[in-house]
Amino acid sequence: MKTVSTVRSHGGVQGGYSHPSRETGTEMTFSVFVPPHAEGAALPVVWYLSGLTCTHANVTEKGEFRAACAELGLILVAPDTSPRGEGVADDAQGAYDFGLGAGFYVDAMQPPFAPHYRMWSYVTEELPALVADQFPADPARQSIMGHSMGGHGALTIGLTFADRYRAVSAFAPIVAPSQVPWGQKALGGYLGVDRSGWRRHDAVALIEDGARLPDLLVDQGDADPFLAEQLRPELLAEACRSAGQPLTLRMQPGYDHSYYFISTFMGEHLRWHAERLAV
Amino acid sequence: MKTVSTVRSHGGVQGGYSHPSRETGTEMTFSVFVPPHAEGAALPVVWYLSGLTCTHANVTEKGEFRAACAELGLILVAPDTSPRGEGVADDAQGAYDFGLGAGFYVDAMQPPFAPHYRMWSYVTEELPALVADQFPADPARQSIMGHSMGGHGALTIGLTFADRYRAVSAFAPIVAPSQVPWGQKALGGYLGVDRSGWRRHDAVALIEDGARLPDLLVDQGDADPFLAEQLRPELLAEACRSAGQPLTLRMQPGYDHSYYFISTFMGEHLRWHAERLAV
Repeated sequence: MKTVSTVRSHGGVQGGYSHPSRETGTEMTFSVFVPPHAEGAALPVVWYLSGLTCTHANVTEKGEFRAACAELGLILVAPDTSPRGEGVADDAQGAYDFGLGAGFYVDAMQPPFAPHYRMWSYVTEELPALVADQFPADPARQSIMGHSMGGHGALTIGLTFADRYRAVSAFAPIVAPSQVPWGQKALGGYLGVDRSGWRRHDAVALIEDGARLPDLLVDQGDADPFLAEQLRPELLAEACRSAGQPLTLRMQPGYDHSYYFISTFMGEHLRWHAERLAV
Repeated sequence: MKTVSTVRSHGGVQGGYSHPSRETGTEMTFSVFVPPHAEGAALPVVWYLSGLTCTHANVTEKGEFRAACAELGLILVAPDTSPRGEGVADDAQGAYDFGLGAGFYVDAMQPPFAPHYRMWSYVTEELPALVADQFPADPARQSIMGHSMGGHGALTIGLTFADRYRAVSAFAPIVAPSQVPWGQKALGGYLGVDRSGWRRHDAVALIEDGARLPDLLVDQGDADPFLAEQLRPELLAEACRSAGQPLTLRMQPGYDHSYYFISTFMGEHLRWHAERLAV
């Protein structure tokens, strides 16, 4: 692991790091905030998964998470959203919603994406092991959150590893990728046309198929331009209602899809995570 | 005035605006955060002046001021750092520390800068009038803060109009431009070689010449790469001591010159301003 930068902030250290990933076969970058802590302490870890077009840098610069993480004693890790670099396939037209910056947190099965696009295994296995090894982290206390495509990642990963992530929340997530254009393009392109393989990567389908969490927190702006076509939180609400899955879905009046929205509710999400990580 | 963008954040509205400036003869951009407030209320206004290379956007995206402004009921205005556009002179070598993005909050007297570089009059007269006219602002309750070159601006403007700004604070300010390379280049280039004209734009000189404020708050990181050569807070401390000017100068261990530093202490500065604006 290479340290790209470290800077003091809110009493802790905000770092940028890179490492050659076994899963993606590329150099991967990520950021970690370590709050002030006692020597030898092992701290809970919150994973933040980013949305389309983002890198680790967007939330690191605009997420306004450090004040709350410092107060609550939480490490926050922000991975990149796809492999990058020489030899990594991209969308044929260079679209923003597929390929580079749009890994959708799956292990791709289709050429030419299968060799490098392994974000599921990278985010759930390889990077957690590296973080546990290199930072004052307590692997027994992890939680996960994300935004938009990263909200999809947080929900599907959280639902799949319900014993590992003690809290799962999302900002404006893609809740049912199988039923919306962004998700259909991504799951089709990475996993192939057989839709049976998509259900493991669709939060609504996972809940329909029996996955459960103690609770779920979702914030969604009602002025989000992607609300009606791509995000469709009503599908999550209906799946949770049918399945008896507890869900706190808050429609936030006037908020859009940006970090101005995310940063507004970041502190509340981190407090909600901290309560569940303290146990 | 043209509204470039508005977005809901922390219960208020973060806007970006532009207008044709009479002072600079150019289109000027600025940002304003208006916190949640009662219909008809007139709110106190905090001015934030940015540093070299910045526009209004840096603090707007990375300053982490909205949570505190929303809680405290403060408007925050962030102007640009220089005129820009067709026909605006720049540093002959395109340097970062003079010309575009480096107006130093003076009215230039020297060719080719005199026609457009009128940031003193712009920030102290023209923009306050526009803000008072277009936003729910209380012109009787204003305060000013800034970073680096903008800290210089906040100190010199605050010391000059002690009856207008009820609180003055700075992050890593240039306290004595007449005595450091950034300032000598800027004041020489904009005001000319006669150093007597520089004293009105040098916080240490202003205090030596009798300017006074009820108090002053300055935070300075001790890992700031510009500390020893350009910022030199010890000159401010010495001038304040000699003059009996109250000063709270806090050296912050491990902090650098970035927004990771500024955002850490932004909430405390805004609270300090709010106390003085409430009276």
